[in-house]
Amino acid sequence: MSQFDYASLVKTFENYLNEHQVIGNPDSLYAPIRYINGIGGKRIRPVLLLMSYNQWHDDITPALPAALGMEYFHNFSLMHDDIMDEAAMRRGHESVHIKYGRNLAILSGDAMLIRCFELLLEAGRNNNTSSTICAVMAKTALTICEGQQMDMDFEMLDAPSENDYIEMIRKKTASLLGTCLKIGALLAGAPPQDADKLYSCGENIGISFQIKDDVLDVFGESEVTGKQKGGDILRGKKNFLYVHTFNQLDQIEKEKFINTYHEASTLGNIHSILEKYQSLKVEDYARQLQQQYFTKALACIENLDLLNISMVISFANELMSRDH
Amino acid sequence: MSQFDYASLVKTFENYLNEHQVIGNPDSLYAPIRYINGIGGKRIRPVLLLMSYNQWHDDITPALPAALGMEYFHNFSLMHDDIMDEAAMRRGHESVHIKYGRNLAILSGDAMLIRCFELLLEAGRNNNTSSTICAVMAKTALTICEGQQMDMDFEMLDAPSENDYIEMIRKKTASLLGTCLKIGALLAGAPPQDADKLYSCGENIGISFQIKDDVLDVFGESEVTGKQKGGDILRGKKNFLYVHTFNQLDQIEKEKFINTYHEASTLGNIHSILEKYQSLKVEDYARQLQQQYFTKALACIENLDLLNISMVISFANELMSRDH
Repeated sequence: MSQFDYASLVKTFENYLNEHQVIGNPDSLYAPIRYINGIGGKRIRPVLLLMSYNQWHDDITPALPAALGMEYFHNFSLMHDDIMDEAAMRRGHESVHIKYGRNLAILSGDAMLIRCFELLLEAGRNNNTSSTICAVMAKTALTICEGQQMDMDFEMLDAPSENDYIEMIRKKTASLLGTCLKIGALLAGAPPQDADKLYSCGENIGISFQIKDDVLDVFGESEVTGKQKGGDILRGKKNFLYVHTFNQLDQIEKEKFINTYHEASTLGNIHSILEKYQSLKVEDYARQLQQQYFTKALACIENLDLLNISMVISFANELMSRDH
Repeated sequence: MSQFDYASLVKTFENYLNEHQVIGNPDSLYAPIRYINGIGGKRIRPVLLLMSYNQWHDDITPALPAALGMEYFHNFSLMHDDIMDEAAMRRGHESVHIKYGRNLAILSGDAMLIRCFELLLEAGRNNNTSSTICAVMAKTALTICEGQQMDMDFEMLDAPSENDYIEMIRKKTASLLGTCLKIGALLAGAPPQDADKLYSCGENIGISFQIKDDVLDVFGESEVTGKQKGGDILRGKKNFLYVHTFNQLDQIEKEKFINTYHEASTLGNIHSILEKYQSLKVEDYARQLQQQYFTKALACIENLDLLNISMVISFANELMSRDH
């Protein structure tokens, strides 16, 4: 059984993507879609889907439309999130609402979400799984909207509980990774219980990944991560480290911490927050939790006979070691 | 064979809608959806779907989830269009982005679009039509995005051609009416060619309907239409009457007409435009064209054996005589 590595799956996917760029009338609706599809990204979601499908079949061609559907969904959510978060940059380029205007970012995003379902319908046609995988996707898509809403609601609070924060990243980020593995398996004709195990695996990888991302944001070095050190602090974004710290403090310390976090953002100096995190050993705690979710992810699939588990492990490691 | 009239179909639909209002976590995502579902509207789209289904089956219960899906789609498009058009009011109430903020109007709209597909999947499950009707819906949904984009692009032009304007309303408004009739028929197990004839019927009714709407905007009386007379002129919106007039004029007159239209909007006085329309008999022309599309709509279904054609005619007349 031939199994593809990450780089070759990305290459296969990107060739397919480039050969299937959308065109239509009016072109103004489709130009932003080609733009966001073209500015890169790690293609983690389509690759996860292809990797999952590849556990059962050497020829991954039939899974390519579904892989493209996942990328469409992901890019749709970025387009709309960037409007909501007023993010001016995406993957080192202007975000869509800056380049094309807010209205086009809304409408082209809608078109990408619709196209995601069209691509899944197409992918499932050969083996009669269209409605099954569309139902899985629709459920996840709503979950992701809920996660984004929780994220926005949290900004109105001093801080959510740690459990609520984990629930938010489970919904907003992790559920799509699980869904990519699950849909890959369902398309491959895998037993539903195997597909569900892969879902859980992907979900736990996703939570682990997001915690790591939050750690790297604060403790990573720009040369390695490719991002501004402490970007979340500078933007006043309440990430996992903030939430964990806040919930450990007594009422007086909480108020002081809120002020310090706010000041760090206003003054553009993250030093006071780094000190606080170091004194509370927040990095150790976060890395342990990240490892726990990763271990849990592996446990979800250890009984899968069909699966070449080493591939998922190596992929997950690769995913963890790259910039976002 | 028992056939329901418009009022009873609205009642059945609204009961179902009220019993199936969305709840979920966080509630902040779902409140705007319940709000827009609750502020009325004529329920034309779900009723068209139910009426079509009812041509083949006395019991319309199995079609209710799909009817709800159509209403979800329509309300999703209103939510997002109202942001793009900066419309503050909808059906005599605050529009969603005014009441809940722009971000919620984007995200709750996304959730409604996703829920539309979930409802169609549910509706088709009993007779294995889920993927067929979802594919029909996805194609139409993209067409509607294209129509909205054309509408926005037209605002940058002096005027589109009359054909381009008709193409825009075909995409933006008429395609969904056709799709409601088509999906109702497919769900009912009708032959695909009958479903396609119903699609064409609904599409032509939709074009006729939109031309009538544009005529009523200018020549209707507020007491009858429930809307401000000349609202399109006052907003500077280039409707069918504007487009038809513009394309009849020579270059010098075109420039004069653009200025007069702009002045009418700025000064809040539609008199000069009404005079121009009257001198060119624009109302007669528009009403004739409206009638042509209506006649065409009826011709699309005249050979349908199964169909009680009188119902569609009476419904279409009812639809035409109501305010928007």
